[in-house]
Amino acid sequence: MKPMGPIPPYFEVRAGQLVLAGQPFSHWLAQVETTPAFIYDMGVVRQKVAAFRAAMPSEVSLHYAVKANPLPALIRAMVTEVDAFDVASGGELERVLAAGAAAEQISFAGPGKRDAALEAAIRAGVTINLESESEAARALSIAARLGVRPRLAVRVNPDFDIKGSGMRMGGGAKPFGVDAERVPDLVRQLVDAGADWRGFHIFAGSQALDTEALIATQQATVKLAADLATQAGVAPPSVNLGGGFGIPYFPGDTPVDVERIGAALNATLAPRPEILRDTHFHIELGRWLVGECGVYLTRILDRKISHQEVFLVVDGGLQHQLAASGNFGTVVRRNYPLAIASAMDAPGDEEVSVVGCLCTPLDRLGDKVGLPHAEPGDVVAIFLAGAYGASASPMDFLGHGPAEEMLVGV
Amino acid sequence: MKPMGPIPPYFEVRAGQLVLAGQPFSHWLAQVETTPAFIYDMGVVRQKVAAFRAAMPSEVSLHYAVKANPLPALIRAMVTEVDAFDVASGGELERVLAAGAAAEQISFAGPGKRDAALEAAIRAGVTINLESESEAARALSIAARLGVRPRLAVRVNPDFDIKGSGMRMGGGAKPFGVDAERVPDLVRQLVDAGADWRGFHIFAGSQALDTEALIATQQATVKLAADLATQAGVAPPSVNLGGGFGIPYFPGDTPVDVERIGAALNATLAPRPEILRDTHFHIELGRWLVGECGVYLTRILDRKISHQEVFLVVDGGLQHQLAASGNFGTVVRRNYPLAIASAMDAPGDEEVSVVGCLCTPLDRLGDKVGLPHAEPGDVVAIFLAGAYGASASPMDFLGHGPAEEMLVGV
Repeated sequence: MKPMGPIPPYFEVRAGQLVLAGQPFSHWLAQVETTPAFIYDMGVVRQKVAAFRAAMPSEVSLHYAVKANPLPALIRAMVTEVDAFDVASGGELERVLAAGAAAEQISFAGPGKRDAALEAAIRAGVTINLESESEAARALSIAARLGVRPRLAVRVNPDFDIKGSGMRMGGGAKPFGVDAERVPDLVRQLVDAGADWRGFHIFAGSQALDTEALIATQQATVKLAADLATQAGVAPPSVNLGGGFGIPYFPGDTPVDVERIGAALNATLAPRPEILRDTHFHIELGRWLVGECGVYLTRILDRKISHQEVFLVVDGGLQHQLAASGNFGTVVRRNYPLAIASAMDAPGDEEVSVVGCLCTPLDRLGDKVGLPHAEPGDVVAIFLAGAYGASASPMDFLGHGPAEEMLVGV
Repeated sequence: MKPMGPIPPYFEVRAGQLVLAGQPFSHWLAQVETTPAFIYDMGVVRQKVAAFRAAMPSEVSLHYAVKANPLPALIRAMVTEVDAFDVASGGELERVLAAGAAAEQISFAGPGKRDAALEAAIRAGVTINLESESEAARALSIAARLGVRPRLAVRVNPDFDIKGSGMRMGGGAKPFGVDAERVPDLVRQLVDAGADWRGFHIFAGSQALDTEALIATQQATVKLAADLATQAGVAPPSVNLGGGFGIPYFPGDTPVDVERIGAALNATLAPRPEILRDTHFHIELGRWLVGECGVYLTRILDRKISHQEVFLVVDGGLQHQLAASGNFGTVVRRNYPLAIASAMDAPGDEEVSVVGCLCTPLDRLGDKVGLPHAEPGDVVAIFLAGAYGASASPMDFLGHGPAEEMLVGV
């Protein structure tokens, strides 16, 4: 058998049944009336928010990176949970505005912003994290045409990344942000042009599980912000410290220690340089807030034996859970945590592969994992489906259609 | 600079402009009124069909594997080009029926067929390629309830795969089909149950570029079909020989030699065992038929320099072209062929990386490729976008929305 990642510790089990928001999984499936389905438990998100608030200095605000899960119901529920939203496209901006977030609560990053999206953002009054000097020129020109004073921050390409992060987004040549050494000039241009300069956005990586590396990155980020502000000769109203807190997906992964991060950040911010004295600090999290709240439930359609191996063929697949199949951003395929949702207490003593319904060998959701004996009709739960699942998968592939999504425990 | 794959030889260039179906790319972009867009040239598909017909024995019919590109306009155009369609879901079945294909022209494979999809297929009278004994039992039971004689073929998990194929779909334990040694029993059961047994579906792999390996696989497939039929004691009306013809994506890739394959298949079929004398043979192709007909056109939004490297940020990305970003079914990222669509004759003397508009380092469409100097507003053409592009990518990811798709040269 091959190992699986750890099941998130947030779910109850009652009489062997997986429980979400106080009800067995079958209760929620009866409501959505089909499988496969993503069930997101807002109670888990609230626990994560509470852990963040308890650990972090009170002056640090919490942003939700909408790209992790843009379900409208989830965004609406987030309006009262987080302090602000980060969007990555005009489409996400529309959703967040529709959910009732105030424009001052929204910032917009992304290396390829169309003029139409810039215009929508400037009209709405959201903060634009500028990714290049030419994007700055476009934004200023659009704002001038509209007669609006734009809220503009500068996304910085730092000269470091988060050691050991799943995705490096800083350090060396990158498509994101402006190289640090060119940032002070750009800031002065923005201020001189009369823009409402909002500060810096410094995002060095994502899906990091190394607490010490996250602490070191935050220290470097605060120092970089102070240096850039000093060189520009102007104090930044805000600094987005990035995010990058990972969640455990695979065997051996352990959660980040937010209490240690919070204590270290407090120690970093307390004696900070004078130029950052009145600066507002933000941390932007997507995956860490919502990744663990979601479970993808998919029903077994067939149980087959081929050359002595057991295959459980399910009605879902990589068209909804691309990352779980090992085909998105991973080099070596490893198993997400899986379970039989009606036999959570039973020993996983049968070696099976869980495969999706697609006609491709890529569609493998569990490779030689140990599960309790299961039959057609039983439901497989694939955990860690709250972030980069439904919206980050090729839902049209092979024409089975999208999965249902439901937010519970609101 | 890193190399790119070969640009397919099917497109004209006129005054430096990429030409599709007799018109410069800009003509088609004006019609779709936006970028990014997929333009599919039906003329290229017809050339591939003609090459197949010229090379293959006339008794071998040509199936289109709809999963490669399920655009309704393309399926409609295929009705008069190919002999039959293979579908992989109830959704694809609906599209092919809506396009006007006759039920006798359709077969349905896929390891996880829902009861509703089986029922729709049986009602319509299409051939179902059974993937397991339990699926056979479900199909017979549904047919009995409907009072219909079902058209059933058996998908065989062969004990071989195509040497060097991009995706192995046979050989050893697999979720596809029934292990060869259990097939004769299942065939007898189907015949005894009064089903209209249609024969075998034997699919050993896909995206193979090794002509000799494809020839050897077809020889093994014909032999296996004869052996299984002999053991079952009944002649198969049809044998689907699979497909697996690849197309060149990457540096060093060369096309398969269909003429040699055709000659070898002729030599295999001419002296075939008596039990296959009246059998109808099919080859099922998706990628090989349509992969080269498509070009993904995406406009440059920004040209940035970071640490001396040039990045062209485009308005498309992996949300439409996941495979080109190296994130679908590939371990080592390599470059698809790319060009500046308005400068096809100019030397590619600038090293650039072409990145999509998504806020993730995964969104890289060309890594350190050599292109002519290009500026915002210019259009990047990414070739080999006709198969497994629009429908096999996470179009909702980051909320930029789907790309336009247009079939031209019909």
